[in-house]
Formats: sequence, C-alpha cells, structure tokens
Amino acid sequence: MSKPAPLSGFPEFLPAQRVVEQHVVATLAATFELHGFANVETRAVEPMDQLLRKGDTSKEVYVLKRLHDETGDAGMGLHFDLTVPFARYVLENAGKLEFPFRRYQIQKVWRGERPQEGRFREFLQADIDIVGRDVLPFHHDVEVTRVMLDALRRLTFLPGFRLQVNNRKLIQGFYLGLGASDVDEVMRLVDKLDKLPAEQVAKLLVADAGLSEEQAAQCLALATIRTSDDSFVERVRALGVEHPLLDEGLDELARLVRGTTALATDKVRIEADLSIARGLDYYTGTVFETRLDGYESLGSICSGGRYDALASDGRTTYPGVGISLGVSRVLVPLVQRGVVTGDRSVPSAVLVALSDEESRDQADAVATALRERGIACEVAPSAAKFGKQIRHADRRGIPYVWFSTTDPDAPGGVTTHEVKDIRSGNQVPADPATWEPPAEDLRPAITTIKETDQ
Amino acid sequence: MSKPAPLSGFPEFLPAQRVVEQHVVATLAATFELHGFANVETRAVEPMDQLLRKGDTSKEVYVLKRLHDETGDAGMGLHFDLTVPFARYVLENAGKLEFPFRRYQIQKVWRGERPQEGRFREFLQADIDIVGRDVLPFHHDVEVTRVMLDALRRLTFLPGFRLQVNNRKLIQGFYLGLGASDVDEVMRLVDKLDKLPAEQVAKLLVADAGLSEEQAAQCLALATIRTSDDSFVERVRALGVEHPLLDEGLDELARLVRGTTALATDKVRIEADLSIARGLDYYTGTVFETRLDGYESLGSICSGGRYDALASDGRTTYPGVGISLGVSRVLVPLVQRGVVTGDRSVPSAVLVALSDEESRDQADAVATALRERGIACEVAPSAAKFGKQIRHADRRGIPYVWFSTTDPDAPGGVTTHEVKDIRSGNQVPADPATWEPPAEDLRPAITTIKETDQ
Repeated sequence: MSKPAPLSGFPEFLPAQRVVEQHVVATLAATFELHGFANVETRAVEPMDQLLRKGDTSKEVYVLKRLHDETGDAGMGLHFDLTVPFARYVLENAGKLEFPFRRYQIQKVWRGERPQEGRFREFLQADIDIVGRDVLPFHHDVEVTRVMLDALRRLTFLPGFRLQVNNRKLIQGFYLGLGASDVDEVMRLVDKLDKLPAEQVAKLLVADAGLSEEQAAQCLALATIRTSDDSFVERVRALGVEHPLLDEGLDELARLVRGTTALATDKVRIEADLSIARGLDYYTGTVFETRLDGYESLGSICSGGRYDALASDGRTTYPGVGISLGVSRVLVPLVQRGVVTGDRSVPSAVLVALSDEESRDQADAVATALRERGIACEVAPSAAKFGKQIRHADRRGIPYVWFSTTDPDAPGGVTTHEVKDIRSGNQVPADPATWEPPAEDLRPAITTIKETDQ
Repeated sequence: MSKPAPLSGFPEFLPAQRVVEQHVVATLAATFELHGFANVETRAVEPMDQLLRKGDTSKEVYVLKRLHDETGDAGMGLHFDLTVPFARYVLENAGKLEFPFRRYQIQKVWRGERPQEGRFREFLQADIDIVGRDVLPFHHDVEVTRVMLDALRRLTFLPGFRLQVNNRKLIQGFYLGLGASDVDEVMRLVDKLDKLPAEQVAKLLVADAGLSEEQAAQCLALATIRTSDDSFVERVRALGVEHPLLDEGLDELARLVRGTTALATDKVRIEADLSIARGLDYYTGTVFETRLDGYESLGSICSGGRYDALASDGRTTYPGVGISLGVSRVLVPLVQRGVVTGDRSVPSAVLVALSDEESRDQADAVATALRERGIACEVAPSAAKFGKQIRHADRRGIPYVWFSTTDPDAPGGVTTHEVKDIRSGNQVPADPATWEPPAEDLRPAITTIKETDQ
C-alpha cells in the first residue's frame, strides 16, 4: 500500500501534539469535577428522528448504513453536537438521575460539512450543563459561566479571550416594548450585523419585519451596547423602551455580569454584548459567545445559553443552562501553526541504557524500580553504542539516560548506577530505589512558541 | 417526546457506573505511560478500501452517508478495531515517528453485528502496540505482555484471569515437521476444538487437510499441552516432531513464559496453551488470549500477537506486536450485574449548605477555598431545611456537608464553620482555608460487591 493521505476535515495529531490535547482534556475534566460536574459519555449514534427532531434538516448529519444491509440505512446517524444526545440521556434516565444534574461530556462529534478553517467533519467538544426538573434557578446561569471561565483560565497557553454575554429576554422584551409584531424576525435580522452593514440591516428591519425607521434605529442602537460592567442597564434605560420581559432580562444579565467580574483578568474579559443572539438556536434567556484574541476568524470558540426546555417528555420539563467549548476548533489551528506543542513525543522521563543484551534483565529491574515510584521510563531497544542510545533519547525529548555498570572483577559483581541529564550533560550517581527527577521533568510539558518568534 | 428506549448493542452508563469506566481508562493510561507508551487518537472513520483491504468483507462495517448527498455513500466507514487505523497512521506519519514506536490508543470502535452477551455495536477498546521499522526484536513481545499484565493487575476489582500464550511458528513448524501439506487448513481446523469434540476435529483433519490418522492424533496431542512454566518444551519434544520453525517457536514461547512468570499471582495466571491460534487473524509469531474467571462465556477479553507486517508501503515493512483489551466487553457485564460501581454519582466530596439565599456568595467563597486545594464540592441549589440539604448530599453519595453560620448580633458578623460527616453524623469546627477530607474521601471510589452477596 502506498502512503495514505490525510482526510480533509478529520484532523489527527502526532504524539507530541496529542500531549497538548491530553493536557487540555485532563485540565477541563479536573476543573469540571472540582465544581461537582459528573462525567457522562453517550453513544456516538442517535436515531435519525432525534437528530432531526427540531425539523432542522439543514444539519449535515452522517447517516449509518450496515455494509451488508441492502434494505437501506440503519435509521441512525452520528451526533452533530452533545446537546441532543444529552437531552435524550436525561429523558431516558430521568428516574435514576438526581436533579439539579450537573454533567460534563468531552467527546467527538461529526458534521458532514465542507471543511474550512476552524470547521471540521470530526471534532472534539467539551460541554457542561446543569439541568433541573421543572425549575432551574437563575444562579445556575452564573455558575456555569464561572465554571467555564475557571477551566479556560487554567489553559494558560491560550491567547486572551472575550466572553460575550447577553440575554434573550432582554432583546425580545426590548423589541416587544418597541411594538414589534414579529420578534423572532427582528432577532434574526439583527443577528446579521456581523455580516451586513448597519444601514442594510436597518432597511431589512423596515422591509421584512415591518418596523418604522425609528424602531429600526432603536434596535440597532441596542445592538451597539457593550460594557464590561452592569452600566449597560442605564444605557438601555436611556433608549426609553419599557417592557416587563426587558426588565427581567436586564436584571438577569446584570446579575450574570456582577457574578463573574471577579474572574476577569487582562487575558479573560467578560462583556455584556447586546448584539449577541445565537441565531436560530432555541435559547430562552442567557446566551454566550467567546472570541479568541488573534483568532477572531474562528468565530465563537465557546457558546451556549439557557433553554427553558432542554428536554421534555410531555409531563415533565427539564430546563437547562450550558456552555460548549470547541476543543478542536481552538486547538487544531494552534497546534498546526506550531504555537503550542508537547516537549516530548513519549511519556518517558528516563531511557535506561543497555551495556549489552545480556544485561536486559538488569535494565528491566531498574525500570521497574523507577515505575514503582511513578517515573515513566523505557529500556533501550538494543545495546547500541552509548552515543546512539543518547541520541535515541534526545530525538524523543527524553531528558534522562540511566547507565548501570557491573564490574566483573569486583567480588559479587557490584553494579554502579549513574543518571545523565542529557540537556546539561550533567551525570551523577543514582539509586534506582530512591532517585527522582525534578517534578517538572516527570511528565511531558506544554511548550508555547510566540507566533512572532517563528 | 416520550421516554426514549436504549439502543440494543450501544451500552451507556449512569454517572456512578461511569466512575468505574473513568477509573479503568485512567488506570490503563497511567500504566501504559509508565512504560513509555505514547497516546494516539485516530479519527473514527477510514476509507472503505482500508477497512476491507485484507479482502475480508465479513466485517460488519458501518458505512457513512451524508444526509443530503444523493450520490451514494461517502466512501468511508467507522473503524471496527484500532489496528487498521493505527497501521494507516504509521504509514501516513512514518517520516515523523521514531521507531521502535510504542503507542496506546483507548477509543470506541463499531461493528454492525447482531448484539449478544459481551458483543456490542459500539464498544471501548484499549490497545498497546510496539512497531519497528524493518525489524522488531523478540524482547518486545515479552515487553507488551508484561505491560498489559501490569495494567490488568492494577484493576483490582477484576476477577482473576488466565493469560494464554502460544506461538504460530511453534504450531506451523510442528505441522510442517509432521509433513502436513496445507498448514493453514490444519490450523483452521484445530482452532475448532473449542466448538467441536476432538474426535470430530480429527476426522476433519483427515478428510479436509489430508492428514493420516496418526498425524491428526499428533496435532490434537499438541493442542492439549498446557503448562504454567516452560515444561511445555519437553512435552512437545516428546511427540518426536522436528522442524527448524518449531525450534524457533519453542524458543520464543519459552522466553515469553520465563519473562513473565514473575508477574503471576493467584489472580493472574500465565499459561502456555498450545491450542490457541487466533483463527483467521494474520499473526506470525506470539499469540495471546485471556479468559476472565467466572465470565468464560465472554470469550477472550484481551487478545493480540505479533505481525511481521503490521504495515507496509512496498519499500518499508513495519513489524509489530500488540494486545487489545476489550474494555466494554469486561466492564459492561460487571457493571450491569452490579458487581462493581462508583460510590458516588457526583465528584463532589462536600456539599456546602445554605442557611438562606442571601448567603450564597459566602457559600460560593467557601467552595472556592476548598477547590483551590483540590477538594471537589458543590453549593446547595436552594436554602431548604438542613435536613433536606443533608438528604440531597446523601442521595448523591457526597460524604460531607459544610455549614457556615454568621451571628448577626456579634460585632463584625463573625462566621463559624462546621463540617459534618453524614455517614457517622460527626460534626466538627473547620476552616475553609485548611480543612481536608481523608484522602480516600477526596474522589469517588470503586465499590465491589461479591455476586454471592447479592
């Protein structure tokens, strides 16, 4: 077979790159668990009627067909997000779950889209959601925001980012207070502001949503409001529109901003951005988007919001609030550009060198002693010259090489051990039962290269 | 939507059950890394010609089709094991990998088979392989065996098991030495011994493989040899058959048994079993199977062996040796029978109770202080009566409840903190900045219930 070519839209990592992804997944999981989120994994497939249950056939679902089944497809498709499977999981297991139910889920999802920058056909997502039975107090909206911010700030190699928050009640209440008759259409048109100039959106609001020119101007004025504190409330009030739903939205968004500003830093900015609506998604209150500094073309890397009905079985409704981080969307460009990588292609901190093939048992015993104390290591594949064995370690980024020498002339065959730090060349006597590398050498680390250094 | 039903063959776990799977995956990964194995994840799909490249169309592959693509399937299918994708990954990245290359891969695989006990349509596998370029010395066969044994022995909740090893060179050399003309056919027929009585296999060996009755009897005699040390060598020699390939196989298998017996315990038995051939798979030397005590009906839970050509691009050949553990095959029956579960449905070690909704900020501050020291916790969802909050913790298996009380009459509003172990009822003063639970309460633990206790 000749050399296979990569499949477009299905990114894969080399071992040293995968170290970064492993680090990200472990950091996210550890943070979510610190906040009491339980892990769930759902199967990769859902029945087609579930995947298309919102009638939204625009999704590019991969449908499954058994190779030897000539009767058609298997009625199943690969999930395109983790929300649909989770909603199904909640309904299927409702009697066995405790609510409010906090879960995180880190899995691959698939979309049969045309691949482009930041868009893949297979990609990794990390979702957190809190789901209630019948009710879910608003403080959980503040909670999920904090949890995701806490997770993102621990990914120290990330560029800075901006979490933009808004509230559907606020914008819908504002449009209602203005007297708009088709609130959804207004929202859909205002959502085009990132693609069309404001004047054109204003014309569409008049032509398609039946607003007056003054009403259209008010809608655009609302969408320009951006503040990093709760001063957006005064600016909205100054527009002179009133509605009970608007009041509710203003109050919720102000609570969210006040409840999360303590987490803001130079790198982590939180902003009430009244232009954010999350398009066609079925959010009913809080909405989130996130832009990565210098990678704005990726779009939102971390999005979500509040659903009044994440799931419902007709009798019971399960409201939810959650955020989804596009792990691949962030990581693949950073890794492919070489901005971030692992400093080793293997987990080994030590290569145990071999003086001859007969001493392999002895080298294995050294390796076993190191592993018993949590030190990852490997034994040299052959008793090549020591220079070659050191190069073997160097090519993999293994920082230490262990040498054991048995003096055949000494009574009882005394063995001496030494360990060399191949970065400094420093070689010292060492005991396999007690020697430890510095903590920072124990595991592969993440190396960041500034793009300007390249 | 009404309550969805589970999909047959696609097992999913409840949160407390998932704790077990997380523990297994983390233990396997940590062990493989201690032995210097790098992690790799490959995409879920492979081109159909790759999946069927051995001409073996008996595989029940799930083929992918884009929902809106009327022109046919996408030419891709879900991988049915981790060996085919890994062989492709090695060829695709050969120039960027360092050989010998040790990798582990823990991923879902899919097979469109009819579901039955221990057989699923989606299941988790954990594979380790060592791949060389052109050559791969035999000591790596001993190495992968040791690594998998080391991993399995750390899964302390598992029943005992028996690792059965054999060598294709040994059996092929024996058949050649006997004078068999169609060695593969003899192997295929002897492999039926676990389904058919020996007399019937003997008849087939005469009828289909052209052996004499005496030759057939010799083949069956070989297949009855089972020893837990290298004494199988003498027993094979006693059958009086000679061939250079037999010698090579005997030597390799003896080295493997001697190199791994140090890892044997009451629970972990290692056995040279000369009946093991691994059917139609393309092994060329060492072969492994593993039976779990009390779960023999599951078949082999952990299998593998040596390939002289795991991959080849025509110019370069990549020999490999590896073992694959059927994580779902082992875990799903144990979990579904309730033999093993997690002792909590949430990661939280502490529930921070709320005396009233106004004190939520204070409760959040306690939670943040605990999390800073790695203690997973959650704040009560509402300021219900304390009895109800304790039951909230109890139902989730959270061992500790934290109470903060602010005396409104004391100058400056002094807050006192206490923590209750709800299992013992013991309640003591505690400081959010220093209190720690015992290490065994920090994370959910695995609970094993003897089946006889149920």
